[in-house]
Amino acid sequence: MDLIIRNGTVITAAGTFSADIGVESGKIKTIAEKIENSAVKVVDATGLYVLPGAVDVHTHLQMPFGGTVSADSYQSGTRAAVCGGVTTVFDYAIQRKGKGILETVKERQAMAESVACSDYAFHCAITNLGENAELLEEFPAAADYGVSSFKCFMVYRKEGMMIDDGQLMRILEKARETGILTNVHAENPDVIDARIATFLKDGKTTPWYHYMSRPEFVEAEAVKRAIHWAVSANAPLYIVHLACKEGLEAVAAARSQGYPIYAETCPQYLEFTSDVYKREDGRNFVCSPPMKGPESQDALWKGIQRRVIDTVATDHCPFKQAEKDWGKDNFTKIPNGCAGIENLYPYMLSAANSGKISFSRAVELCAETPAALFGCTTKGSITVGKDADLVLYDPKKDFEISVKNMHSDYDNTIWEGKKLKGYPVQTYLRGTLVYDNGTYVGTPGSGKYIKRGASGRR
Amino acid sequence: MDLIIRNGTVITAAGTFSADIGVESGKIKTIAEKIENSAVKVVDATGLYVLPGAVDVHTHLQMPFGGTVSADSYQSGTRAAVCGGVTTVFDYAIQRKGKGILETVKERQAMAESVACSDYAFHCAITNLGENAELLEEFPAAADYGVSSFKCFMVYRKEGMMIDDGQLMRILEKARETGILTNVHAENPDVIDARIATFLKDGKTTPWYHYMSRPEFVEAEAVKRAIHWAVSANAPLYIVHLACKEGLEAVAAARSQGYPIYAETCPQYLEFTSDVYKREDGRNFVCSPPMKGPESQDALWKGIQRRVIDTVATDHCPFKQAEKDWGKDNFTKIPNGCAGIENLYPYMLSAANSGKISFSRAVELCAETPAALFGCTTKGSITVGKDADLVLYDPKKDFEISVKNMHSDYDNTIWEGKKLKGYPVQTYLRGTLVYDNGTYVGTPGSGKYIKRGASGRR
Amino acid sequence: MDLIIRNGTVITAAGTFSADIGVESGKIKTIAEKIENSAVKVVDATGLYVLPGAVDVHTHLQMPFGGTVSADSYQSGTRAAVCGGVTTVFDYAIQRKGKGILETVKERQAMAESVACSDYAFHCAITNLGENAELLEEFPAAADYGVSSFKCFMVYRKEGMMIDDGQLMRILEKARETGILTNVHAENPDVIDARIATFLKDGKTTPWYHYMSRPEFVEAEAVKRAIHWAVSANAPLYIVHLACKEGLEAVAAARSQGYPIYAETCPQYLEFTSDVYKREDGRNFVCSPPMKGPESQDALWKGIQRRVIDTVATDHCPFKQAEKDWGKDNFTKIPNGCAGIENLYPYMLSAANSGKISFSRAVELCAETPAALFGCTTKGSITVGKDADLVLYDPKKDFEISVKNMHSDYDNTIWEGKKLKGYPVQTYLRGTLVYDNGTYVGTPGSGKYIKRGASGRR
Amino acid sequence: MDLIIRNGTVITAAGTFSADIGVESGKIKTIAEKIENSAVKVVDATGLYVLPGAVDVHTHLQMPFGGTVSADSYQSGTRAAVCGGVTTVFDYAIQRKGKGILETVKERQAMAESVACSDYAFHCAITNLGENAELLEEFPAAADYGVSSFKCFMVYRKEGMMIDDGQLMRILEKARETGILTNVHAENPDVIDARIATFLKDGKTTPWYHYMSRPEFVEAEAVKRAIHWAVSANAPLYIVHLACKEGLEAVAAARSQGYPIYAETCPQYLEFTSDVYKREDGRNFVCSPPMKGPESQDALWKGIQRRVIDTVATDHCPFKQAEKDWGKDNFTKIPNGCAGIENLYPYMLSAANSGKISFSRAVELCAETPAALFGCTTKGSITVGKDADLVLYDPKKDFEISVKNMHSDYDNTIWEGKKLKGYPVQTYLRGTLVYDNGTYVGTPGSGKYIKRGASGRR
Repeated sequence: MDLIIRNGTVITAAGTFSADIGVESGKIKTIAEKIENSAVKVVDATGLYVLPGAVDVHTHLQMPFGGTVSADSYQSGTRAAVCGGVTTVFDYAIQRKGKGILETVKERQAMAESVACSDYAFHCAITNLGENAELLEEFPAAADYGVSSFKCFMVYRKEGMMIDDGQLMRILEKARETGILTNVHAENPDVIDARIATFLKDGKTTPWYHYMSRPEFVEAEAVKRAIHWAVSANAPLYIVHLACKEGLEAVAAARSQGYPIYAETCPQYLEFTSDVYKREDGRNFVCSPPMKGPESQDALWKGIQRRVIDTVATDHCPFKQAEKDWGKDNFTKIPNGCAGIENLYPYMLSAANSGKISFSRAVELCAETPAALFGCTTKGSITVGKDADLVLYDPKKDFEISVKNMHSDYDNTIWEGKKLKGYPVQTYLRGTLVYDNGTYVGTPGSGKYIKRGASGRR
Repeated sequence: MDLIIRNGTVITAAGTFSADIGVESGKIKTIAEKIENSAVKVVDATGLYVLPGAVDVHTHLQMPFGGTVSADSYQSGTRAAVCGGVTTVFDYAIQRKGKGILETVKERQAMAESVACSDYAFHCAITNLGENAELLEEFPAAADYGVSSFKCFMVYRKEGMMIDDGQLMRILEKARETGILTNVHAENPDVIDARIATFLKDGKTTPWYHYMSRPEFVEAEAVKRAIHWAVSANAPLYIVHLACKEGLEAVAAARSQGYPIYAETCPQYLEFTSDVYKREDGRNFVCSPPMKGPESQDALWKGIQRRVIDTVATDHCPFKQAEKDWGKDNFTKIPNGCAGIENLYPYMLSAANSGKISFSRAVELCAETPAALFGCTTKGSITVGKDADLVLYDPKKDFEISVKNMHSDYDNTIWEGKKLKGYPVQTYLRGTLVYDNGTYVGTPGSGKYIKRGASGRR
Repeated sequence: MDLIIRNGTVITAAGTFSADIGVESGKIKTIAEKIENSAVKVVDATGLYVLPGAVDVHTHLQMPFGGTVSADSYQSGTRAAVCGGVTTVFDYAIQRKGKGILETVKERQAMAESVACSDYAFHCAITNLGENAELLEEFPAAADYGVSSFKCFMVYRKEGMMIDDGQLMRILEKARETGILTNVHAENPDVIDARIATFLKDGKTTPWYHYMSRPEFVEAEAVKRAIHWAVSANAPLYIVHLACKEGLEAVAAARSQGYPIYAETCPQYLEFTSDVYKREDGRNFVCSPPMKGPESQDALWKGIQRRVIDTVATDHCPFKQAEKDWGKDNFTKIPNGCAGIENLYPYMLSAANSGKISFSRAVELCAETPAALFGCTTKGSITVGKDADLVLYDPKKDFEISVKNMHSDYDNTIWEGKKLKGYPVQTYLRGTLVYDNGTYVGTPGSGKYIKRGASGRR
Repeated sequence: MDLIIRNGTVITAAGTFSADIGVESGKIKTIAEKIENSAVKVVDATGLYVLPGAVDVHTHLQMPFGGTVSADSYQSGTRAAVCGGVTTVFDYAIQRKGKGILETVKERQAMAESVACSDYAFHCAITNLGENAELLEEFPAAADYGVSSFKCFMVYRKEGMMIDDGQLMRILEKARETGILTNVHAENPDVIDARIATFLKDGKTTPWYHYMSRPEFVEAEAVKRAIHWAVSANAPLYIVHLACKEGLEAVAAARSQGYPIYAETCPQYLEFTSDVYKREDGRNFVCSPPMKGPESQDALWKGIQRRVIDTVATDHCPFKQAEKDWGKDNFTKIPNGCAGIENLYPYMLSAANSGKISFSRAVELCAETPAALFGCTTKGSITVGKDADLVLYDPKKDFEISVKNMHSDYDNTIWEGKKLKGYPVQTYLRGTLVYDNGTYVGTPGSGKYIKRGASGRR
């Protein structure tokens, strides 16, 4: 064998057990109480937890946005990913007017190919169906290529990325037919714009007004609207970065009627409330949707416990401090987005370690369900035959997040100073050690494109 | 090794993979693409699925009820169980006025001990808390003994089994404190009685009036009421044999508010509608709650797909034909209950085999979730360290259910003539073959009492 | 003419206008900007409001309850009524086991006949349908006699007044057929009893535990259950003394589905919260349902504004201080009930006078809708042809309620010290002055039995 | 006196009674069982009902739309109105980009002034708030001028009339501050456009595809969205021409939470279903929103009975047959709108005459509530001091609607052939006979502008 991890406590969504794990050719070959074979490399995981690598289904790498480009490249972003136990990264390839879906995806794929430190897959964000909705014809080919989920931005009209309700309905209908899962960023663009206009007129320009421009009801409206269309089209829907209580209740209500509506939230909405926008460095927390009030925060945790929320992902989209500072005196000039890819798994596992949820539930939220929902059949759990994407986690290791101990290219993080109970100590990507106790030890370019199967769950 | 099952397709809630499974001392020791060791016994499962043994969390064996005793003893019931792929059976020990919880459970346990063909556990159905609710004091001891779930019948006043709302609230509150999960049989007793009185007065005595005495709204009311109390007490609640759409929606609504409300349904509610009560042999289908209309049937399947329903169990409680015939001319004289224990897993797997749900979902519903929810930590999935309760399933084997090919002591079944696609061919209980292609081959008394951990999910 | 009221500002549900009102033979004959005729008696109402006499559809006079009899007789209760502007009083005649409906009503009618100071009508509270539900047969006769509404107590089992769900369904079904409106007192008896038992065991005996025995969720459950049955029976339902937010929402939800569900609240729930039970004299506020928390209070006012609540009535059922004192050391010994009949109209009009609702809405709630809903075709508004039940109201008169200035036979009131803005100065019953500026000036026995038409609204 | 109407049966929202009505200077002076005075004109209404003139709060007269102008001028429209018992007509003055509110209203007022046959008032439809939302500043002046309600079209972007969600929120917030009631036309523009594009591409051009472009879910979405914004702004909202079940339920749900949400429907939605679009003359029924399916129709009637719907108005906007014919081969070319102003009251009264609702409820829906809700303090009920807008109605008169017996300028009607039970025989506008048994007998220009008070209800 190539690798045996011995004596660890293995954690899956289904439970926890002691076992050795044997790896060959990058795959999990054996899980056994005791593997008698020998191996090229043997790791003693006594006292450690062995987890499946996490699957972060929501990131924006090297994304042109807000007048700049997000701070993490395909290299640095995926490097940070594996250092945080994420072994598969989904990036949103943004289709632009006049461009095809595969054209868009392949362009991005090419950018990642030689530098990726983790495996990677793509959703495609559709922004323009073309004059006569020609892009709809490309849906089956996209699915065949392994791109079985599309995103619609219900906001960002000025940025040329917004999909209106009419196009959204057409996408939902075609997506249903072709086994594609439609993702939405749900906020209401016109109300945001009107509120911003009023605030700017009144000289209200601090980061607090970022939140006030897109408070709970602005997100909730769009969530309810997206669900209304999905239900009307009888199509599955996945709501990204859900951050408000009323939206969560709408998800649950639709699901209780038998509709396949899924919800993702992000660590930042679980950890912070809108109070952060009153802080001196409030601008660093500017992302969309913004953090919400404590009622929503509480509801999200309950949604996680009650399985209304299916996945936790990051919406990783950091910007450099100098860029965040553009909005020092005007919140509308702050590029929207925060770091998270390296914090996702440690944060959720720390919550488990503190008893808020079980370790199995953390693994289900961050690895097993995202992989299953988005057709990553070789990822997401410690099972014979799956890729040997493994994380060794030390439940006793204390860790304090700082930009200094992160592995991204950004220079600030909203997670600065956050203390975690337990931390990953090693990450294996298809059997190869890529992260070791604070250091990236892999080879950029070793990450592979993941061709996905159909999205959705049965 | 004691046993190796080679070349099978292993199915877990998390997915499907090809692997060998190695068993030693009744436990799963190794799961591997290829186990190189030898073993005392090697089984070639080429072309077969390897599933975890199912956990039927709802049966009534040797239960005194309706003026007789249910037709299956602890021996015949558990024998039928393993012949249908169920390796763990939960029986409801009915506590009676003046009796203690442990006293009740131990009495039943003694009856099962020397004859059980499957492993077994007990819920305790509390029917009388005592003059001063003394029984509440015994809750911690019951949990310690491995009885971490209680049932309350909201019906059966005359039978001395009903718990009124006041007692239900006290049980819920105490159960929450002691990590016990309260199960309820939800129907409204007074409305049933009043309707029966009216029907009998009007000479309406056919089995159809069994349904008409307890139609959708009679169950729905009690489901909503039980949830209301659980929410008010902030206690977890598990609704057994949920059979109506409105009740299902109430479960989902409460869950969307963050409350730990769980739901079980049964194969009979998925397969049949109230139309069966118009059949010549309608009396054989008399159980409580009765089958409902097609709207409810459809909603239950959607609830399964959308994960509002957590488990499928049987409410196995068959009666002999002669006893069922007591009610030939008067539905109120029909002992309530039907067979199911041997049909549960084949039925749900056949639904998977026909594409209605995935095999993983069937396994989750019948094995993994019931085990997890009710604290059977050694059961419910194919994982290293768990009991080697394994089912070999031939997806190509056609099967037609008949009382003649079942292994119970009853002499009629509502499932007569039902054609299934795929069927279990072998069952292993802790590594020992107990069922082999149509024949029970185990040793009665080899089933063991399962001491459970805390119920509930985190 | 017999009487002309000149120059007043007339208030009806439809609006406000200046007019003279001419009365002959106890009826309103003329409403005119200026009546040119002369009259036996002319009253100058300059600066005053002229209102229809209120219709209090919820009182308990001379009611045997809680080991005694409510403090107001048919004489003193109706005397207090007219002194507070109520000209029609509905009493609940409580049918007892073995008694007929008409028998019960006529007995009560006989008690009122020679002493009533206001007009009066009866609901009948059904408490026992008889062995074979014989009482159902009497429903048409009751409706013919003018008793077109029945009440069901969902509580008071020990008092022999409770109707169980089975009987409630039968009553609802028969009531629907016979044009009768079913009223319910909605609280859950078993939970109340269980909570009381626990509190008494723990020595918790102050009035606060009256509230704690029947908190919001105890009432809400029963309201939702009553609505469930009414919807299932497709029968109209009227919920008396609704006092909780969750119940109110259930009423609105059912109504939005097209079901004829009506709701009444009482001034005490609009004015007080459960905090009163912490007062030294908390026992005086003990009534059932108890006052609730501020969320419910707020919701009730909104329900009034949004027309979810249809009527305001009093549940007048005062007890003497000596009787209230029985429960000084044990809240369960306090007779349940409070005074209100003389306070209803002044309280609601004072709310109007302070701008909380309009005067028209106050008149609608206290006079027009109760009359219309319960088939009092000659009552409830200032309309030609209706009984000249008129109240002159001085919007500038300040008034402070005290037991000393009330006209009942009780000796304490929860309204003591309440300051009102505006107060009735005269009441006319069918054209005869019966109340004049603080003094009852009528003749006991002049009140008449009102034979009602069908209840319900179209 | 100028006029006495003797011996009629007067109908108000509060009930029905026999009375004479005396009129002087255009006002109701006296309502009396018997008016002894003499009068210039005396009308014997024996056997007739006397009703308040209806208030049609939704019409579009001389409206430029769909490439033409609606067929009824201020003269012919108001003439038809009084011939159908409508004595007050609200027209929607459409504010256009760059125009002020008062400027717009006054322009329309000038057009009506010399020709109006009924009294008239204006809502203003705001279509453009200006670059910096300057129009908001004009709200108080508009209210002062008697224009206390504004409309927002959520559709008609291409027509330059649509208000987006951002502007809608600003309008709602300002309207709340200034006592103005915001009306919305709720349909989703983008989904309509996308569906139309698809249908046209597929050659689906019959009127059925008008319905298919704007089915139930297209309206329901916008209704829910509008309510969401009103609730978020805590502002009152009035939904015009509500035509779908899901929207109705959303209204009721919001109201149950205490929010001031009002709903109007129209006779066409009560009478017809989408099946009309399958008729040969389906194009004549093209209006927006279109008629819906029978589930919605049924729900609307229940909403009327349960008082979830507040008003019935017409959306009168007829087009000539030649214009309707433009869309013979392409539904998108059909000018949207139908006739109704002369049919409203007869239709609703005929429903009352057939027992579907009470006459009082019909009067409440068509006269009293619209007047009260929109601040027409001198209109809407038969009350001393109000304008003597009176309708004599013969409940025995059979009538069949035909374009030949209507008094508009259109030449086709969706109501052709509709048989009514009962019909108006005379209409008085402020005491002057303007309609007499089939003939308009008034003087164009006698109609007056109604300066309204604040909209909304308390």
